[in-house]
Amino acid sequence: MAVEESVKYVSIIGSTGYVGAELVRGFASHPFFRFRHLTSQTFAGKPYSDIYPEFRGIVDNLCEDLPYDEVAKDSDLVITALPHGVSAKIVPDLLKAGAKVIDHSGDFRYKDLATYEKSYSLTHPNPELLKEAVYGLPEFYREKLKTADLVANPGCYPTCSLVALAPFLKNHLIEEDSIIIDATSGVSGAGRKSDLAYAFCELDESFKPYGAVGHRHTTEIAEQCSFLAGKNSGDIKVTFTPHLAPFKRGMLASVYAKPSKTFTDASSEKINAIYNDFYKDEQFVRVLSGKTLPDIKAVACSNYIDVNGVYDPETDMIKLFTAQDNLGKGAALQAIQSANVMFGFDETAGLKNIVRGI
Amino acid sequence: MAVEESVKYVSIIGSTGYVGAELVRGFASHPFFRFRHLTSQTFAGKPYSDIYPEFRGIVDNLCEDLPYDEVAKDSDLVITALPHGVSAKIVPDLLKAGAKVIDHSGDFRYKDLATYEKSYSLTHPNPELLKEAVYGLPEFYREKLKTADLVANPGCYPTCSLVALAPFLKNHLIEEDSIIIDATSGVSGAGRKSDLAYAFCELDESFKPYGAVGHRHTTEIAEQCSFLAGKNSGDIKVTFTPHLAPFKRGMLASVYAKPSKTFTDASSEKINAIYNDFYKDEQFVRVLSGKTLPDIKAVACSNYIDVNGVYDPETDMIKLFTAQDNLGKGAALQAIQSANVMFGFDETAGLKNIVRGI
Amino acid sequence: MAVEESVKYVSIIGSTGYVGAELVRGFASHPFFRFRHLTSQTFAGKPYSDIYPEFRGIVDNLCEDLPYDEVAKDSDLVITALPHGVSAKIVPDLLKAGAKVIDHSGDFRYKDLATYEKSYSLTHPNPELLKEAVYGLPEFYREKLKTADLVANPGCYPTCSLVALAPFLKNHLIEEDSIIIDATSGVSGAGRKSDLAYAFCELDESFKPYGAVGHRHTTEIAEQCSFLAGKNSGDIKVTFTPHLAPFKRGMLASVYAKPSKTFTDASSEKINAIYNDFYKDEQFVRVLSGKTLPDIKAVACSNYIDVNGVYDPETDMIKLFTAQDNLGKGAALQAIQSANVMFGFDETAGLKNIVRGI
Amino acid sequence: MAVEESVKYVSIIGSTGYVGAELVRGFASHPFFRFRHLTSQTFAGKPYSDIYPEFRGIVDNLCEDLPYDEVAKDSDLVITALPHGVSAKIVPDLLKAGAKVIDHSGDFRYKDLATYEKSYSLTHPNPELLKEAVYGLPEFYREKLKTADLVANPGCYPTCSLVALAPFLKNHLIEEDSIIIDATSGVSGAGRKSDLAYAFCELDESFKPYGAVGHRHTTEIAEQCSFLAGKNSGDIKVTFTPHLAPFKRGMLASVYAKPSKTFTDASSEKINAIYNDFYKDEQFVRVLSGKTLPDIKAVACSNYIDVNGVYDPETDMIKLFTAQDNLGKGAALQAIQSANVMFGFDETAGLKNIVRGI
Repeated sequence: MAVEESVKYVSIIGSTGYVGAELVRGFASHPFFRFRHLTSQTFAGKPYSDIYPEFRGIVDNLCEDLPYDEVAKDSDLVITALPHGVSAKIVPDLLKAGAKVIDHSGDFRYKDLATYEKSYSLTHPNPELLKEAVYGLPEFYREKLKTADLVANPGCYPTCSLVALAPFLKNHLIEEDSIIIDATSGVSGAGRKSDLAYAFCELDESFKPYGAVGHRHTTEIAEQCSFLAGKNSGDIKVTFTPHLAPFKRGMLASVYAKPSKTFTDASSEKINAIYNDFYKDEQFVRVLSGKTLPDIKAVACSNYIDVNGVYDPETDMIKLFTAQDNLGKGAALQAIQSANVMFGFDETAGLKNIVRGI
Repeated sequence: MAVEESVKYVSIIGSTGYVGAELVRGFASHPFFRFRHLTSQTFAGKPYSDIYPEFRGIVDNLCEDLPYDEVAKDSDLVITALPHGVSAKIVPDLLKAGAKVIDHSGDFRYKDLATYEKSYSLTHPNPELLKEAVYGLPEFYREKLKTADLVANPGCYPTCSLVALAPFLKNHLIEEDSIIIDATSGVSGAGRKSDLAYAFCELDESFKPYGAVGHRHTTEIAEQCSFLAGKNSGDIKVTFTPHLAPFKRGMLASVYAKPSKTFTDASSEKINAIYNDFYKDEQFVRVLSGKTLPDIKAVACSNYIDVNGVYDPETDMIKLFTAQDNLGKGAALQAIQSANVMFGFDETAGLKNIVRGI
Repeated sequence: MAVEESVKYVSIIGSTGYVGAELVRGFASHPFFRFRHLTSQTFAGKPYSDIYPEFRGIVDNLCEDLPYDEVAKDSDLVITALPHGVSAKIVPDLLKAGAKVIDHSGDFRYKDLATYEKSYSLTHPNPELLKEAVYGLPEFYREKLKTADLVANPGCYPTCSLVALAPFLKNHLIEEDSIIIDATSGVSGAGRKSDLAYAFCELDESFKPYGAVGHRHTTEIAEQCSFLAGKNSGDIKVTFTPHLAPFKRGMLASVYAKPSKTFTDASSEKINAIYNDFYKDEQFVRVLSGKTLPDIKAVACSNYIDVNGVYDPETDMIKLFTAQDNLGKGAALQAIQSANVMFGFDETAGLKNIVRGI
Repeated sequence: MAVEESVKYVSIIGSTGYVGAELVRGFASHPFFRFRHLTSQTFAGKPYSDIYPEFRGIVDNLCEDLPYDEVAKDSDLVITALPHGVSAKIVPDLLKAGAKVIDHSGDFRYKDLATYEKSYSLTHPNPELLKEAVYGLPEFYREKLKTADLVANPGCYPTCSLVALAPFLKNHLIEEDSIIIDATSGVSGAGRKSDLAYAFCELDESFKPYGAVGHRHTTEIAEQCSFLAGKNSGDIKVTFTPHLAPFKRGMLASVYAKPSKTFTDASSEKINAIYNDFYKDEQFVRVLSGKTLPDIKAVACSNYIDVNGVYDPETDMIKLFTAQDNLGKGAALQAIQSANVMFGFDETAGLKNIVRGI
């Protein structure tokens, strides 16, 4: 199959936020996708590279402000980077127009309607789609993604939490009520906005927890943990605390859990071996060797997620660590990974060599 | 008592490291202390302000390389900022020469010799001093500090961990085997050294855990937790993970613990009230109001430590947060606070208005 | 004279911007000034430390929203940190109410009305005050400040440019039409505002020139250069380019000029000697030794300005360098230095030991 | 020509420094180059991704410590990232072994031997190669690069200075004795080394000039300026001052020059038009529109160089600005651009879509 025959057309709704910009960066060098529409209400009519000058000469496409069904009708894939609540309303129209959809909001990430509605304080206008939507974490839902029409791209914190926990939940190696996730995000996670709280002088040389009770990603993590353990939504709960740190891109999860009673020979070496075994066929999950721990620096601007763990015999505690780029594996580049699966491309197409370097 | 009559002379051994420099900054504007000797093997004979140009016109004293007993004999207070192992050997001579001593290493922080020797892989040459040494956290050991000749200045991670935990340990409000401390330090905590690992390009835009098993501060925290709970060294163990973040100064501790069976009415409001009650007479522990969480930005370059906590009813988990400057309350400025207590000065002398501002 | 007898009361209008916060930091530890009113329209009724938590326990005064004359009537000194145009209107009322005034805007910095009105695209409502106002750079206008009622605090770029150039202009050692000032500011210079252009993700890892033609400080620098050279406003013009760099506080000026025909023996040593001689009695201008060049790190959070220069014989070019804190010597702390002069205090009162350290 | 037929083998000597790592990043995704040897004395035998974990799964080749002629004999292209002085000695052997060579040191950048030897305080062991070597700035030496065996990759400061100045020198639009270059580099320009001067705590929140007289790049810039103006080495001299700023990657040049007597209609619009005309066929020189000025953020991690200029009528001064990545267009990626030309590939092969994004 020659390249041009296999080309698919992708449109991005809400293309000028930070997730949108990372989607644009990723798809711009993709061998099989071409841009159809880059939509923006604010910047309609302007070249994309006016908003992000780094793309000058690379992506000079004009931003458009089109009705959603027009976006979808000549696109093979529409990616929505919209606020929750908004996605829930418009995604059905996109699907009806014949496009496959990857949505970046929380609107289609839950299987349990009540959990979604409580977490987001919203009534879902199209709850029937929750069943249909596939959670876009290819490492866990690859088969379903192959035929999915609607993919809910996971939250950034859920992605790094679940990659850390999956082998231990699937194999019942940890006490399910003992999970604590202490995670830290770079500032780009807050999006592109004029808000004093995210001003340079407010965040440089700062570090702080936020949303220490009830952050929305808590229930998303918990539901997926339940599924990974073969249980029902709500069966597992997790303690989760996000922090904000003064770097642009990157996210680290430090996860604590007690070994289960059946996991009697816990050790750092064993944890490393479990990861190596579980992720041996994965291209983007990199299990670090020995006692090397993840650093966000090594995954910046990429779709990789680095993982390792240790066992503390003094307190009989398992510590798991994952590092990813919050906009990369935590958002836009993971969406491209899913898109590759959805359209039958090599899962690594366009993603393998994207790395910041120094 | 007029100022000049009450003046005391302080010397700093190892004055040109980062802790030394912060001691110099703090004492330079102290109303009652004057410098006697600033020692440095590397920079002997040079003005202090040649090494730290910010002190030009403020502290231009010449660095000296003197025998330790000569440093001590005309000093009221000697502060040692030396590596562990070295302090253990020389502190007895300083005391014999008649000076009071505040030591910044781990050599005198433990009551239990075996714990020290295991944690530091050293044989202590002067173990009898462990009994005599007072742990220099004024909020918990104020009375003993008043008559102390030898003060072991606490580690940075222990200070912020213990301030977070103290009211809950003292009042038996948490399960003592459930403590998890996830903490993050700025880079100055690693000291002033020529080491690729701390080069700008290696750390800017980075974030990572380190020493995930067996970091020395773990046992220091654990022993003091035991004492705060009215138990013996070794009775309480803690899970502790430090992280390194791309800012110069600051440290945040996020502490997790389960409420004890007697703490049946745990709530965020209750936690806040417990802190307010416990620290109501403290000048440097600031209990934040409502659900405001600590940020290292607010304590940078100061001796303040900001504290607050929340309760997560979903998982029945207490989360406690403290922010301090790792070189301030976490090291040098806390030493000055102890010095104030040791010499009968107002505990806040020279410390109250030190704040970075924006 | 005992301290309490000499105490003066200061009020700050617009106290919650970054310049306001630095004034608050500086005056909070001043031996002779006490706060009367801290005004803020946005935060009236709230403790100052709610807006800037670093001041909790230090400055908890309530912000007020008072008529300007009420602010002034019980204050010895009113400092205005307001936008240009606004200051021009209200300063006369403050003076009438009996207070001395230090204004931070550009409204009273010029002697030549037309230059002001062209630079700021405004008609000055009180032009008669331009004559009365003293330019608040104590190193050059100390005598006039002693009796001044209205002081125009200099711009940040003008302060570091003029300190670099003064000895050479006064002694006619440079060609007056050859001056090029290439300067770089930290982000706090833009003030405290919700503006995407100053968001963390827009500025971290960025560096750029701005206002490359017609930045307002150009004419302010030029007029003062003319006066320093003993000429009239407009006689000297300068080339000026500001840049924005990813740090919070600090400003560096790199100034280029050709030696005048009478300066036939230009050399780096000679330039250093000229600075040492010219600033020998100054407490806050630090002439660095030998070929050490200024670094903003050494002046951060202080009122110091570090200066040095070199001569390039290959191109017969003088290069002068100054580093200051844009909020310190470049704004708020310089205002406190002027206030000390205006009220007959030691010029260094409250300022000598303010330094960030590491 | 199918891809595999056209594949060329590249080796990098000194591959584990920052320039080496950027070469590795660039060539790793290049369609036509494959790695042969990555040499390192320090890390021989280790996978490249052990030194730079970001390359795990991308470049896991083992580092080798081979004799130079063995490196060259099975390589089509050898790139040397070695200190000056060292390159001068070994490059002849590489050429003799049959490889084309791109050298990153200053050893082959000069045509005038005396200027090189004075600038670098060295006696050149192989001065005859100076004539043969082509200065690797494809925008100016494209034709010569096509047949070059030895390419001297330009210095980072020279690249951005010369791209700014070229149209004005070639067309005699500026006074040749009036050129002042004020430039700022990110920290990666200093290389990968354990040196306190480049420690995080020494550079975060710092900004300073360095090498203010006699920086080696001064003569390299000057010689190329002479050639661009159609003159001989030494005819044009330039004033040059580098600065160091707290970001990892990026470089900005702010260039000042007087319009020549023939350039009577200088204006910002005219300058922009001159750039657009001069660089209209270039893929990597992006002339910004209107009065938009370059920002290093937009060129980070790429081979692009953004350029624009303004005219200040008040002082009759031309200001030119260029932004590049010091490791990208300023070093490694420009070397790849030259390599494309040398081997007859599309000049943009492997470089067009490399961009950091946010």
